[in-house]
Amino acid sequence: MVKRKRYSLRRPKPNKALHQAPGTATYVGHKDSVETKLEVIDYNKKSFERFISKTPEDAFKFEAPDKVTWFNIDGLSNTEDIEKLGKYYELHQLIIEDIVNTNQRPKIDEYEDYIYVVAKMLYHGKNGHLENEHISFVLGKDYVLSFQEAGGDVFNNVRDRLSESHGRIRSNGADYLLFALLDAIVDNYFIVIEDIADKIEYLEERLFESQPNDDITFEIQELKRTILRIRRAVFPLREVASRLEKMDGDLINDRTRNYLRDLYDHILQVSDNIDIYREMTWGLMDMYMTTISNKMNEVMKVLTIIATIFIPLTFIAGVYGMNFEFMPELQWKYSYYVLLGIMLTIFVLMLFYFKRKKWL
Amino acid sequence: MVKRKRYSLRRPKPNKALHQAPGTATYVGHKDSVETKLEVIDYNKKSFERFISKTPEDAFKFEAPDKVTWFNIDGLSNTEDIEKLGKYYELHQLIIEDIVNTNQRPKIDEYEDYIYVVAKMLYHGKNGHLENEHISFVLGKDYVLSFQEAGGDVFNNVRDRLSESHGRIRSNGADYLLFALLDAIVDNYFIVIEDIADKIEYLEERLFESQPNDDITFEIQELKRTILRIRRAVFPLREVASRLEKMDGDLINDRTRNYLRDLYDHILQVSDNIDIYREMTWGLMDMYMTTISNKMNEVMKVLTIIATIFIPLTFIAGVYGMNFEFMPELQWKYSYYVLLGIMLTIFVLMLFYFKRKKWL
Amino acid sequence: MVKRKRYSLRRPKPNKALHQAPGTATYVGHKDSVETKLEVIDYNKKSFERFISKTPEDAFKFEAPDKVTWFNIDGLSNTEDIEKLGKYYELHQLIIEDIVNTNQRPKIDEYEDYIYVVAKMLYHGKNGHLENEHISFVLGKDYVLSFQEAGGDVFNNVRDRLSESHGRIRSNGADYLLFALLDAIVDNYFIVIEDIADKIEYLEERLFESQPNDDITFEIQELKRTILRIRRAVFPLREVASRLEKMDGDLINDRTRNYLRDLYDHILQVSDNIDIYREMTWGLMDMYMTTISNKMNEVMKVLTIIATIFIPLTFIAGVYGMNFEFMPELQWKYSYYVLLGIMLTIFVLMLFYFKRKKWL
Amino acid sequence: MVKRKRYSLRRPKPNKALHQAPGTATYVGHKDSVETKLEVIDYNKKSFERFISKTPEDAFKFEAPDKVTWFNIDGLSNTEDIEKLGKYYELHQLIIEDIVNTNQRPKIDEYEDYIYVVAKMLYHGKNGHLENEHISFVLGKDYVLSFQEAGGDVFNNVRDRLSESHGRIRSNGADYLLFALLDAIVDNYFIVIEDIADKIEYLEERLFESQPNDDITFEIQELKRTILRIRRAVFPLREVASRLEKMDGDLINDRTRNYLRDLYDHILQVSDNIDIYREMTWGLMDMYMTTISNKMNEVMKVLTIIATIFIPLTFIAGVYGMNFEFMPELQWKYSYYVLLGIMLTIFVLMLFYFKRKKWL
Amino acid sequence: MVKRKRYSLRRPKPNKALHQAPGTATYVGHKDSVETKLEVIDYNKKSFERFISKTPEDAFKFEAPDKVTWFNIDGLSNTEDIEKLGKYYELHQLIIEDIVNTNQRPKIDEYEDYIYVVAKMLYHGKNGHLENEHISFVLGKDYVLSFQEAGGDVFNNVRDRLSESHGRIRSNGADYLLFALLDAIVDNYFIVIEDIADKIEYLEERLFESQPNDDITFEIQELKRTILRIRRAVFPLREVASRLEKMDGDLINDRTRNYLRDLYDHILQVSDNIDIYREMTWGLMDMYMTTISNKMNEVMKVLTIIATIFIPLTFIAGVYGMNFEFMPELQWKYSYYVLLGIMLTIFVLMLFYFKRKKWL
Repeated sequence: MVKRKRYSLRRPKPNKALHQAPGTATYVGHKDSVETKLEVIDYNKKSFERFISKTPEDAFKFEAPDKVTWFNIDGLSNTEDIEKLGKYYELHQLIIEDIVNTNQRPKIDEYEDYIYVVAKMLYHGKNGHLENEHISFVLGKDYVLSFQEAGGDVFNNVRDRLSESHGRIRSNGADYLLFALLDAIVDNYFIVIEDIADKIEYLEERLFESQPNDDITFEIQELKRTILRIRRAVFPLREVASRLEKMDGDLINDRTRNYLRDLYDHILQVSDNIDIYREMTWGLMDMYMTTISNKMNEVMKVLTIIATIFIPLTFIAGVYGMNFEFMPELQWKYSYYVLLGIMLTIFVLMLFYFKRKKWL
Repeated sequence: MVKRKRYSLRRPKPNKALHQAPGTATYVGHKDSVETKLEVIDYNKKSFERFISKTPEDAFKFEAPDKVTWFNIDGLSNTEDIEKLGKYYELHQLIIEDIVNTNQRPKIDEYEDYIYVVAKMLYHGKNGHLENEHISFVLGKDYVLSFQEAGGDVFNNVRDRLSESHGRIRSNGADYLLFALLDAIVDNYFIVIEDIADKIEYLEERLFESQPNDDITFEIQELKRTILRIRRAVFPLREVASRLEKMDGDLINDRTRNYLRDLYDHILQVSDNIDIYREMTWGLMDMYMTTISNKMNEVMKVLTIIATIFIPLTFIAGVYGMNFEFMPELQWKYSYYVLLGIMLTIFVLMLFYFKRKKWL
Repeated sequence: MVKRKRYSLRRPKPNKALHQAPGTATYVGHKDSVETKLEVIDYNKKSFERFISKTPEDAFKFEAPDKVTWFNIDGLSNTEDIEKLGKYYELHQLIIEDIVNTNQRPKIDEYEDYIYVVAKMLYHGKNGHLENEHISFVLGKDYVLSFQEAGGDVFNNVRDRLSESHGRIRSNGADYLLFALLDAIVDNYFIVIEDIADKIEYLEERLFESQPNDDITFEIQELKRTILRIRRAVFPLREVASRLEKMDGDLINDRTRNYLRDLYDHILQVSDNIDIYREMTWGLMDMYMTTISNKMNEVMKVLTIIATIFIPLTFIAGVYGMNFEFMPELQWKYSYYVLLGIMLTIFVLMLFYFKRKKWL
Repeated sequence: MVKRKRYSLRRPKPNKALHQAPGTATYVGHKDSVETKLEVIDYNKKSFERFISKTPEDAFKFEAPDKVTWFNIDGLSNTEDIEKLGKYYELHQLIIEDIVNTNQRPKIDEYEDYIYVVAKMLYHGKNGHLENEHISFVLGKDYVLSFQEAGGDVFNNVRDRLSESHGRIRSNGADYLLFALLDAIVDNYFIVIEDIADKIEYLEERLFESQPNDDITFEIQELKRTILRIRRAVFPLREVASRLEKMDGDLINDRTRNYLRDLYDHILQVSDNIDIYREMTWGLMDMYMTTISNKMNEVMKVLTIIATIFIPLTFIAGVYGMNFEFMPELQWKYSYYVLLGIMLTIFVLMLFYFKRKKWL
Repeated sequence: MVKRKRYSLRRPKPNKALHQAPGTATYVGHKDSVETKLEVIDYNKKSFERFISKTPEDAFKFEAPDKVTWFNIDGLSNTEDIEKLGKYYELHQLIIEDIVNTNQRPKIDEYEDYIYVVAKMLYHGKNGHLENEHISFVLGKDYVLSFQEAGGDVFNNVRDRLSESHGRIRSNGADYLLFALLDAIVDNYFIVIEDIADKIEYLEERLFESQPNDDITFEIQELKRTILRIRRAVFPLREVASRLEKMDGDLINDRTRNYLRDLYDHILQVSDNIDIYREMTWGLMDMYMTTISNKMNEVMKVLTIIATIFIPLTFIAGVYGMNFEFMPELQWKYSYYVLLGIMLTIFVLMLFYFKRKKWL
């Protein structure tokens, strides 16, 4: 049995929420142990405040009327807190369900007073695995709620820009904040697909190693799987960005639309690259097949050359090893040397023949 | 001849209804022996009643004016009862035909006073086979009719939620009940495709077993067939859910639309996964081909190494087995030992050569 | 050269009508010898009459004002009769051309007073060949004209239902008759694709026969061709049915629309199945390739085992067949038995080695 | 190096017009040597006149006010004449450029007073090559201009029908003439694709010839190329025909629309067939691969049978060729015959074994 | 390890701009060392002036009110100058970002007073590499700004035509200039894909070289990659050209629309060819596989012929080399010659057998 390391995206757990009433919030991801953390950032052009609280009730106090509030929740296993938050912001029960349903694909749902967006954050975890993290956003008039499975550092850059008083982000509304968060996620996609490109090059190199190895077919198959899963995380986001840009209503500011179009362009770029890497990966198997066949060809040639030269010579030696009483050649004085000469001639002619056939 | 176990979806029976007048109800499924069972559930926010009756006439009595009625029929072989029901609810003759035509693909038909929905229930039967059960729904103003080939336990969860007085399902209308039933079916799809994922992993493991085996190509082909049939059962349902959500008229309540959109999202999730598993399965054949070739390569190497080392040595031995009278080496005292030495040298050099070629 | 039986759809004859003025009626099919037969059926709710006539002129007399007339022509080689009919019903010259142009793909053309529909009838001929018969319909206010290449028995069922006074078909108009005829054609498709499924299973079995055989690649290629041609006959019909259902004007009765939607569903079912069988067939070639490779592997193993065991042993025997004068082992008393023992040991070790490699 | 005959469509010359100002007329085709020939045909219901002139100026005189004028130019290398014509008919400079740009794909451009149509004429040249000739049409109120690279005989049939006074073509306008010319081109497609079908059958036969040959992979690749190029010439024409049929304005007569729809149907037929032949051709490579493998299998079996039978026998002979002094069997009287018997038995058993394995 | 030359498009650098605020201009291309060069061309029907300046401030002076200004910037590493220009022309910050983001795919963005177009210039660099240069245009009322990564000679032809007083380009506005520049880029595509065609033919030739070589699989894979990247550069441009043609507003003159449609046609031509070359390239791997298999077949045949002839003969010689005391044949006088005769007969029969099998 071949031993092999799996490095693909982990398969999603069977949906624990199955056979529950729709709208029931049950966390189905892998990160049960992550403690729920609540972070509130209030800002406007002039001020910036950041709080970490343990309970949602504490957090609600920090909301200020003339400021944009970013409410970031890390860890989804504590569904109670999320339901409290849902009640406070009057979110539909189905949103609560989707926030913790990590199998949900990227999508956008418009409600009367808010927009609900699901995306997938892709990044390399500590063990080198590609992590596929479920992330949800709710965009209201002057707030953005973000729900992450595990607190990563992808949003740190946004936090930094918020803390600087002169940035464009501070003078824009909640819609621009949503854009900035989505943009941070998409920026990470570029890093992930760059990694895919490296993996393809690495496999191309390995294909030509001297020992064909079943491991490599596994790795190609795993890479296919990874690409298919990345594709599934990225492609539906195109629709999300496109619909965000074209959305009616006053949640999205006209000034922000240009940025959303830019976001859409970036997702298209990622999609284009994914499809290129996909075709390259699918081609790897064919490449591997031809290299195996080439190697087999080489093996066969060695066998054929040796056998073709020595089998006839052995036959000749065998003839003169026969014990017939009447074999006149045996008594001749120089027949041994003549025969050696003949054998050498055959040997050389054979070499010449193979040389001309380019087998040597 | 290879013996093999078939584990695919059973092929549908040739349509018994062919060459009958359209609109003629003829059951074409495999479950002739299932006795038709009629179950009526009446409920509203306050009350919940459940009856099992043998004849439709008995069942009709249980309908109450201010309640939602769920009329569930298990077993489709008794077409008479179904026709009586059709007459009572004034269903179009073509619906009666489709209810018992188990080859019908998922679809939605709008009539003036009711909506007709066909879906496919996928689940694992007692023998481990994947069962593909035909199921139809009729949604009227305050009733839902459901027609199953065989009574399964997929709807038990819905029954339980109905019997609890505080659930959301009790305070909603017949449209929400239809959603809940479809949702139960789609939830089951997740379990079925999870099984496909397991099968793929199992086949990937088996590919590398030491004995290449024609059975495995059969199993891959069977898995392809299964995936194609699941695909066929699931993909048309996207259209059904989408049209249900967007449907005009007062059969679908606005509050229910959000849930239907959620259903649609779930079907998309299943579809995405089916397509990923499909590509993985299609890749299995290529993987298998490369492993066979690798195995052949290994076999050829063993042959080549042995033949290439011993054929020349045998030739040398043959030369000194010749019976010429004048072979001076034969009389020399140490020629035997010298020759053995030469042979050993050739042997070692050959090993060295193959070592350097990484064949050993 | 391999001998092989062709069982595919026959290739259409090169279009005899090429380079003629458009609108010229020239029969291009294979059934020149079929005598043209004219059959008229008049019916309404109360009466049913059926005539066979030799000339169109005779046939026209049978038309009755308050009845639906079905005018069925078998055999298209007599273009004169068809032109007479065309003149009587004021058909456009292009329709006459298409009626006898058996290469015409399924389509629907709307004219002011009538609709022209082309379909393909697929059935198994006497010799087991799949016949692809061109069939045209003209639907007028109270008549249906049908033009078949050869009189088959596909419409017999419709005739029977027409002759029974109580059927739904008698109380409906000409549009329902057209639906019934198309439905009879589509019903036959189910039988044809069932046959494809059988052929695939038969080929899957044959792949594993002990002798790889080039015939089978031919048969797979032929099956591909057959499926592609069936596809071409069936797929455009979806559009035909869909447009018939949505057609404005008073030729199509609202009551008939439901039936046409049902027809459309049935064509979709056939299409789905064709695509599944198509993918299965495309997979057969891969399956075949792996079985050939597996067989080759087996052959190579036998060779390798035998050669690897006996070539070294032969070498040892060769060494002691050398004629050196000074080979001390030759004089020792038990050296022969010792050597035999050594050979046996090598033999057993080799067997053990191959056993452990799972080659035996 | 393999010698091979190329029979594909010739690759278009690198665009000579590159880096010229747009709208500059430069002929980029292969037929520089074809002398430009101008032919004018004037006709109406009553009269028909045909002139050949050397200069456009001569030709213009023949135009008559109440007649349809067909102005046919053979040979595009003389761009001056074409520009004169363009000036006379007030054609846009870009049209002049496209008329001589033989790389232009089929398209339709609507201008205020005329329509410009590009098509590709496919036919077999004298050397058996498939010629891909660029052809343009300008349809005005009462004239059609046609520009061919080389004068072929494809339009002769149209000329003949024009010269006959009773044909439908004479009583219709310029739009019908355009239809008739396009129809002649499409009719020729049927002949070309018929040829592709023949080529596929020829290659299928050749695949099973006893000597696998690299030439055949070249021919399959060339056939692919040819089909792709035909596809490229035919597929855009669907759009052309469809837009012609639906075109507003008074250039297209309503009576002609039916004929244009018929043209569209014919192009669809060709397209369908191209796609079928395409899939068949793509399948040829797989077929070839399996036949090669089958042949290799056969070769390996011969080797294995011979080697497996004789290598062990040779070993036995070798044992009794050893020169040990104490080998009791050597002195026994019948041991030689006994040994021959044993060898024969082994031989027969081996044959039996291979027979049972179906290798013989 | 195989050594190989890479000749593909270089992989884009990891986006240096990641995790920066959107709208931040950071050049991410490979041409950091290219010095920024500013070139201003002012022209109208009567006059033509051209300046090279080092700073944007100098350049702005040259703008004249009644002239079209073409502002061409070579080298994007100096983002400061580009930002100054952006401020002068009041460009949106996102445009500045995209101008220097060389990973941006082709697109068109409409702003109120100008249009922003991104394209990719493909050409062969000095080292024979295919260069993929990012190029942006801004079209305003009477100016065109163009931003190139490196100053190439692709636009020289446009400059020449501008300097000639009688050209069409001088009498048209800025929109025509944009068209002319895009047209120059598209013209270059034809040269690039011509090169792909050459590469395919070269690889087809090499496939049949006598020594199968892993290098060639690399080259095919590289060619695939190149085609995929060209595709990615060209295909989005279709949308750009199509939207330019259909654009409302007064930036695009009606007279220019015809030319833009022509541009669109040219891009379609390129796209068609790319897809053909793509399919041809994908077919190369299959071709290679069959040639390897054919070569292996040939090797196996040589081995089989030699082994099959000499192994049985060696066995016979071995039999008469046995040392049994009672082997009557050994004493017969002519048995040696008889045996030689038998061996020769076997040899000839074998040759005959292989001849008939067409292996010789």
